Amino acid sequence: MSIVITNIGELVTNPGHGRDRLGIVYDAALVVEDGTVAWVGASAQAPDADERIDAEGAAVLPGFVDSHAHLVFAGDRAAEFGARMAGEPYTGGGIRTTVAATREAGDDQLRRATGRLVTEMRRQGTTTIEIKSGYGLDVEHEARSLRIAAEFTTETTFLGAHVVPAEYRDDPWKYVALVSGPMLNAARPYAKWIDVFCDRGAFDEDQARTVLAAGKDAGLGLRLHGNQLGPGPGVRLAVEMGAASVDHCTHLTDADVDALASTVFDCMCGDGGWSSTVATLLPGAEFSTRSPYPDARRLLDAGVTVALATDCNPGSSYTSSMSFCIALAVREMRMTPAEAVWAATAGGARALRRDDVGRLSVGARADLMILDAPSYLHLAYRPGVPLIRTVLHDGVPQ
Amino acid sequence: MSIVITNIGELVTNPGHGRDRLGIVYDAALVVEDGTVAWVGASAQAPDADERIDAEGAAVLPGFVDSHAHLVFAGDRAAEFGARMAGEPYTGGGIRTTVAATREAGDDQLRRATGRLVTEMRRQGTTTIEIKSGYGLDVEHEARSLRIAAEFTTETTFLGAHVVPAEYRDDPWKYVALVSGPMLNAARPYAKWIDVFCDRGAFDEDQARTVLAAGKDAGLGLRLHGNQLGPGPGVRLAVEMGAASVDHCTHLTDADVDALASTVFDCMCGDGGWSSTVATLLPGAEFSTRSPYPDARRLLDAGVTVALATDCNPGSSYTSSMSFCIALAVREMRMTPAEAVWAATAGGARALRRDDVGRLSVGARADLMILDAPSYLHLAYRPGVPLIRTVLHDGVPQ
Ligand SMILES: [Zn+2]
Ligand SMILES: [Zn+2]
Repeated sequence: MSIVITNIGELVTNPGHGRDRLGIVYDAALVVEDGTVAWVGASAQAPDADERIDAEGAAVLPGFVDSHAHLVFAGDRAAEFGARMAGEPYTGGGIRTTVAATREAGDDQLRRATGRLVTEMRRQGTTTIEIKSGYGLDVEHEARSLRIAAEFTTETTFLGAHVVPAEYRDDPWKYVALVSGPMLNAARPYAKWIDVFCDRGAFDEDQARTVLAAGKDAGLGLRLHGNQLGPGPGVRLAVEMGAASVDHCTHLTDADVDALASTVFDCMCGDGGWSSTVATLLPGAEFSTRSPYPDARRLLDAGVTVALATDCNPGSSYTSSMSFCIALAVREMRMTPAEAVWAATAGGARALRRDDVGRLSVGARADLMILDAPSYLHLAYRPGVPLIRTVLHDGVPQ
Repeated sequence: MSIVITNIGELVTNPGHGRDRLGIVYDAALVVEDGTVAWVGASAQAPDADERIDAEGAAVLPGFVDSHAHLVFAGDRAAEFGARMAGEPYTGGGIRTTVAATREAGDDQLRRATGRLVTEMRRQGTTTIEIKSGYGLDVEHEARSLRIAAEFTTETTFLGAHVVPAEYRDDPWKYVALVSGPMLNAARPYAKWIDVFCDRGAFDEDQARTVLAAGKDAGLGLRLHGNQLGPGPGVRLAVEMGAASVDHCTHLTDADVDALASTVFDCMCGDGGWSSTVATLLPGAEFSTRSPYPDARRLLDAGVTVALATDCNPGSSYTSSMSFCIALAVREMRMTPAEAVWAATAGGARALRRDDVGRLSVGARADLMILDAPSYLHLAYRPGVPLIRTVLHDGVPQ
């Protein structure tokens, strides 16, 4: 089955490393065959195909790559959010509420809750989704969360080290041993990545290193939550261990930025290069916790590869909208619209070490969206407006 | 034709003046007959009707009342937005670009462009829309803009005094005379309101008073753009002339807040009262121009009635999403989620001096939305996510 999309006013192709070079082709057409991009060129030269979609001058972009999302949980924490925004004390349980609800939920309930968010994301243009565990926090429930996550994506991340659960408060190392041993073993069949929350009130440097080293030995790729709540060892640890991404990066020292920049390797193509450890920024979390935003410009100016992701989770960032994150990145972090769109597509792909998504050239997966707008600029120019008209995932209109 | 909506988890009714009293009924049902609300009560007691909609525990709210929108124009200014966000100088024409494109557009083109935005708003839960002229700026094109606006809404506003057009730069009073005379006469048959931009670089106090006085004599209600770009006479003039609303209110002195508070009349119901001049805040404009937000708390604490609206326009706020404005109001202006939802529904109705919309009790128009969420809180808790599942306008599912 082949599809040709004609009359694309503005086709974003993301041809290379350039963090603001979207490789736009105007008046373009694109052919999809067997789930991959088979042809890109001028609309006037478009070949025939089984099906034809007229984009009517709209912009077409690679599907968003959301490289950071916590989607396997039950319940929500709307009341906690309301209290936080009103500056009122809140005596609820925070993340423990979610852990309790998740453990209590039946498999089908949890599957439906996750599926609902995945569907919501797809409708909004996200075609690659990383899904973390982290609300089970025991062997059985972490493994179950990853089993369910794996039904929806190949980008599954074991985050047993999300927080030290109440049962282990007096002996966090005992929990670290559980995460690095039996829990990792149970999670392993369903997980591609391992992640750890290395921050104030979560895991310290040694604990985080222990968890990541165990994951690496088990063949998992490494990711890290770091430097969200304050300066800390997260970024440097991520670079030291060769993590694919360090996420949040809200509080960085000069040494942190230097460490990230040191992972950039130049490419012979002459179009710059990529960081082997990507800085993934999650402005939805700063929005929803009323915190200062990360300094994206400092990272970009140092040559670091930046990704944008939603951090979708019920506690600190319950948005599933990559468009919203792009609008925040432009407004609050002074990324240009082009940098933000690149970070939400090619940047996310890089943070997952994928080269088959986040771009639209021959051979790439046919994951793309047709906007209800003539330009990618509208994603920032028209904040909050649902501008995703049609989504193709694996070449199939959703 | 009657419709009963059952299993409403949370029904927002907005019963009175209370600016954060949403009058929530849990486990509710609501019956629509002939376009109005005919019955509200417990879901278990719901009467029969011709059609049944199961809300499945979702929240139901009055449709949004967007009391400030500039929807009759051609073209967009995405490139100008991109340059502004990147901090680059932009040598384009600003509002003049839009005026030129609007004048050049055929009637059908303009009608389609306006209709597209109206449809986009309805899908996002907005059931009452105020539409301003202001991109014609001559007799013929202002009248045409209002004629087209009147095809979509009864809340039409003549804004010939949007900006002094280039042709009159050396003699703004000559333009004021045109607006207050021939242009007003031509606009009158299609307009319910008159509005003036009283701010730095637009119309001064005497010019604004002249325009509003002419509109009042012609039987139009009064509105005013004021105190957006700096402190100024806008708010005091609005109060002095008995305007229904003064919009933006970004830069207020104590005297401005006192003037607005002086218009509050207490109601015998014991539930506070309403300002006869509402302060309408437009945080989408501050978002998209990277400006400081208005101090909503100061107004609320002084007892002033606050409305939220999009200011949807191609120059400074091209959002059509009231949900997005609610999320900004909570995050950036420290309104509680309840205050923000009230301001986007009942507050907007008050700014248009309407009592048939913005609330859901027997006799009100059946303008409402069913959310894809269990609570109104989610509109702020889940920023950027399209949460409007079903919209009824005049009792008709859209
Ligand atoms: Zn996270
Ligand atoms: Zn306006």
